[in-house]
Amino acid sequence: MGHSEKISILVTGSAGMLGRKLVERILRDGHLGGRLLGEFLLADVVPTEVPAGAPAGTRVFVTDFSQAGAATELVESRPEVIFHLAAVVSGEAEADFDKGYRVNFDGSRALFEAIRQEGYVPRLVFTSSIAVFGGPFPEVIPDSFFTTPLSSYGTQKAMVELLLADYTRRGFLDGVGIRLPTITVRPGKPNKAASSFYSSILREPLNGKEALLPVDESLRHWFASPRAAIEFLIHAANLDSNTLGARRTLTMPGLSATVGDQLAALRRVGGKEALALVKRQPDPTIEKIVSTWPQRFEAARAQALGFSAEKTFDEIIGVYMEDEMGSRVK
Amino acid sequence: MGHSEKISILVTGSAGMLGRKLVERILRDGHLGGRLLGEFLLADVVPTEVPAGAPAGTRVFVTDFSQAGAATELVESRPEVIFHLAAVVSGEAEADFDKGYRVNFDGSRALFEAIRQEGYVPRLVFTSSIAVFGGPFPEVIPDSFFTTPLSSYGTQKAMVELLLADYTRRGFLDGVGIRLPTITVRPGKPNKAASSFYSSILREPLNGKEALLPVDESLRHWFASPRAAIEFLIHAANLDSNTLGARRTLTMPGLSATVGDQLAALRRVGGKEALALVKRQPDPTIEKIVSTWPQRFEAARAQALGFSAEKTFDEIIGVYMEDEMGSRVK
Repeated sequence: MGHSEKISILVTGSAGMLGRKLVERILRDGHLGGRLLGEFLLADVVPTEVPAGAPAGTRVFVTDFSQAGAATELVESRPEVIFHLAAVVSGEAEADFDKGYRVNFDGSRALFEAIRQEGYVPRLVFTSSIAVFGGPFPEVIPDSFFTTPLSSYGTQKAMVELLLADYTRRGFLDGVGIRLPTITVRPGKPNKAASSFYSSILREPLNGKEALLPVDESLRHWFASPRAAIEFLIHAANLDSNTLGARRTLTMPGLSATVGDQLAALRRVGGKEALALVKRQPDPTIEKIVSTWPQRFEAARAQALGFSAEKTFDEIIGVYMEDEMGSRVK
Repeated sequence: MGHSEKISILVTGSAGMLGRKLVERILRDGHLGGRLLGEFLLADVVPTEVPAGAPAGTRVFVTDFSQAGAATELVESRPEVIFHLAAVVSGEAEADFDKGYRVNFDGSRALFEAIRQEGYVPRLVFTSSIAVFGGPFPEVIPDSFFTTPLSSYGTQKAMVELLLADYTRRGFLDGVGIRLPTITVRPGKPNKAASSFYSSILREPLNGKEALLPVDESLRHWFASPRAAIEFLIHAANLDSNTLGARRTLTMPGLSATVGDQLAALRRVGGKEALALVKRQPDPTIEKIVSTWPQRFEAARAQALGFSAEKTFDEIIGVYMEDEMGSRVK
């Protein structure tokens, strides 16, 4: 514990899947970057459940900071580290054009602007996404590849990346953007997202349930586990940001794998019985969407800065089993 | 003249250097894409001087459409082609953070949104800039290079590029973005812009006046003439935009040349006497700024689509002499 003063942290989107895991992780650690946890501000549009063991300085905000003035109260106590996770998801941003821009873009801008008006310079870790990219792609996508999103969600994330870099360059923020891979295996139930099957073809069979596979086994994509994503966030918060220069957003490392790779890992971990629960049911609509998604990134800068993800789907499945099924091997 | 109906056109930023030249060019042609000029809407924050020969449908708007509601009146007559040139320049956007975002970003967004609310789909040609790029650069910058601007102006342009693509993808606009090279030789007087010398070291000697050269002759940059820029705009308005796919912004072709190349052309065109009027006066501040600017682009997509610029600085100087000094060689 190198510093005597405790660290204050704000998490936006604290009731979401990654938000909850991040909050749990910080509480479990009890510190961030070697400094004991002090004030802990949890903000979401729905109430965040406060886990046992949260410190006295924990405060829950139920707020929509895309509304005028709402971001101000989140930063008036000047939290030193801000994890900005709040967003409406890809499907919702596509279905509701105005809401997507209002929450994902205007909300982020309002938060940055509230910080600027408050007049202090927190570390702000922003979760961007590989949805900022749109095909056609080279076989391996370099860090210098352009952002040509094919969704409103990806557009909003790319716009906030630009804003983050400019607010940082102007000295209003100390921003770090991290582009997350598709996070697998997500806990919970299958949903309507086009990417849902990437988790459900593993999660459901591991829990003895059938899952539908809507695409060809040759389809390749870019993955990391929820645990790796939380590790990215923590690492981004502790990074020496001087090493980033003006280019503040990093494509995170991940595992490039095919559906076939996923199924082979499922068989190794769960046996023939698990594999037999995966039912092929081709869905041209889903196939069409996900076949345009990126398949492999270089992620050279992030790796050089110490970010790392799983190397096999066996590991990713192992993380799910440890973190969600109670089979803690540690 | 393939269509019986006249074409209606809106130009924003019509009182600026490029706006005036575009208006003159359209009036001289009398048509756009083979259709006679009908309604001609000229919008700027200052009054646009209407040239002789403007049609009866010409209307001048003095408006700041970054103000709520102001964009609506510009599109309520549904101009079919919109040239969106209005912007505060790089130096001003850097000096006044709020004004730069308000005009360059919010103003553009308000215009796009007014079009969406009006419920029609015009061709919108947006002038972006190579300021969306920030070094370090490869020797030749490919079309797929990422936008990591090092100015608020470049950030705002890159954000509007993203918005343009998404509004187009959603069917609200038929957008084409064109990233202009540094436009040289600008008419008028030297100004405080860091790039000012690129024009003044040619313009001033050609007019018998001294000019200061603040940088080394080896410095390389990316240029086109004002006439080429107007040609880009016209070509972008007439382009079959289906050929663009989802990637709506194109880096325009240009001439990669050093200051030494400029001076050699000055000597060929204006003789020893003209060259002798260029006085070396190193300015480390200017040198530092312009040395980070891009030097050479591939511009492959734009060239394949028929955009073209000058091949030598002799040509660029010739354009200046013809268009600004009355020495029309044609």
